[in-house]
Amino acid sequence: MSQYTLHCFAQSGNAYKVAFYLQAAGLPWTPRWVDYFKAGETRAAAWREQVSEMGEVPVLEHGGRRYSQSGAILTWLAEHTGHFAPEGAEERYEALRWLLWDNHKFTSYYATLRFLVGLQKSGESPVTEFLRMRAQAAFAVADKHFEAKPFVLGAKPSIADFSLAGYAFYDEETGMDWAAYPALSAWRERMRALPGWVHPYALMPGHPLPA
Amino acid sequence: MSQYTLHCFAQSGNAYKVAFYLQAAGLPWTPRWVDYFKAGETRAAAWREQVSEMGEVPVLEHGGRRYSQSGAILTWLAEHTGHFAPEGAEERYEALRWLLWDNHKFTSYYATLRFLVGLQKSGESPVTEFLRMRAQAAFAVADKHFEAKPFVLGAKPSIADFSLAGYAFYDEETGMDWAAYPALSAWRERMRALPGWVHPYALMPGHPLPA
Repeated sequence: MSQYTLHCFAQSGNAYKVAFYLQAAGLPWTPRWVDYFKAGETRAAAWREQVSEMGEVPVLEHGGRRYSQSGAILTWLAEHTGHFAPEGAEERYEALRWLLWDNHKFTSYYATLRFLVGLQKSGESPVTEFLRMRAQAAFAVADKHFEAKPFVLGAKPSIADFSLAGYAFYDEETGMDWAAYPALSAWRERMRALPGWVHPYALMPGHPLPA
Repeated sequence: MSQYTLHCFAQSGNAYKVAFYLQAAGLPWTPRWVDYFKAGETRAAAWREQVSEMGEVPVLEHGGRRYSQSGAILTWLAEHTGHFAPEGAEERYEALRWLLWDNHKFTSYYATLRFLVGLQKSGESPVTEFLRMRAQAAFAVADKHFEAKPFVLGAKPSIADFSLAGYAFYDEETGMDWAAYPALSAWRERMRALPGWVHPYALMPGHPLPA
């Protein structure tokens, strides 16, 4: 039996942050598919009461407990398994800083843009234009950072990299030009080259979506 | 001389998270005004190179070091001063979870909505409608949480409450109806009643904006 059960679905890059981490760390885990699109499982009262009051994926089960929020799950996993853990107080601060920034500025806008344009096929609108401008600003900050460092904290990948990588490998159109961010793109290739890397659609259940 | 210098400006609720915390904790601090609106100081290359590569406020200076990202600053302050610190591993996890959620879902949409509608006087648009719908969903999650608990972690306020309170006291119009979230509104009054509470425009420099 797996030590870890991950409530997830293939299209969720926030779930992929944890799935990719577990895979790269070589930890035994089992996915538990969440029917987000058709049944709206995360929005149901039962989910909110029993699994996550925030109504979100991923949720990790381990030792009879449930953990939610990808950044908190990654921090907890690093503390408890040692894999991809920041070393020392300074690195711990730096990892937390980037986890928060990822949630606020990087994943958030890019993931929503990809949801609207890539999955819902919304077409262009003032909202997608707004999200893309914000995503571009965040990509530029990350690109500048990776000009100086191969991974967020330096020479080695850490939980902060897995957080930033949540939506980096999906292929849907978003109108973002990764080639315009060469250092960020090179970091993405370093993440793809990590042992254990699997594309999110192959790693988590629920792809393709039913027509 | 103050132990803490906070780079901030009156209109930044993300800076207020830390300013309000320092005030309520009774820690000696001095504001250092950042010219965000006119000179665009946080977007300048010098700021990005010397203060915060993320181009953000707040930045806290202490002991010759600079700390950025409000959620990381609050976590660090709690660890180093003990004020409003989560107690034990379980509370630390819970505080981190809400700090991340605040950055991703609560502050982020509401702060941007207030920036557009309240400060820029943008009027209504598909973007403000999008942001308001997201803010309403986040307000509902917080409201439900505060039906069961007076503060995020329970009986006592913690750093997670200061994070959520960043934009709670600004008076600009946002089109959000706080009265529709009675438990969240009651929590806001509990935060306002904390010793040391001061309105953000009285606590940080730069209000009012020049016409």
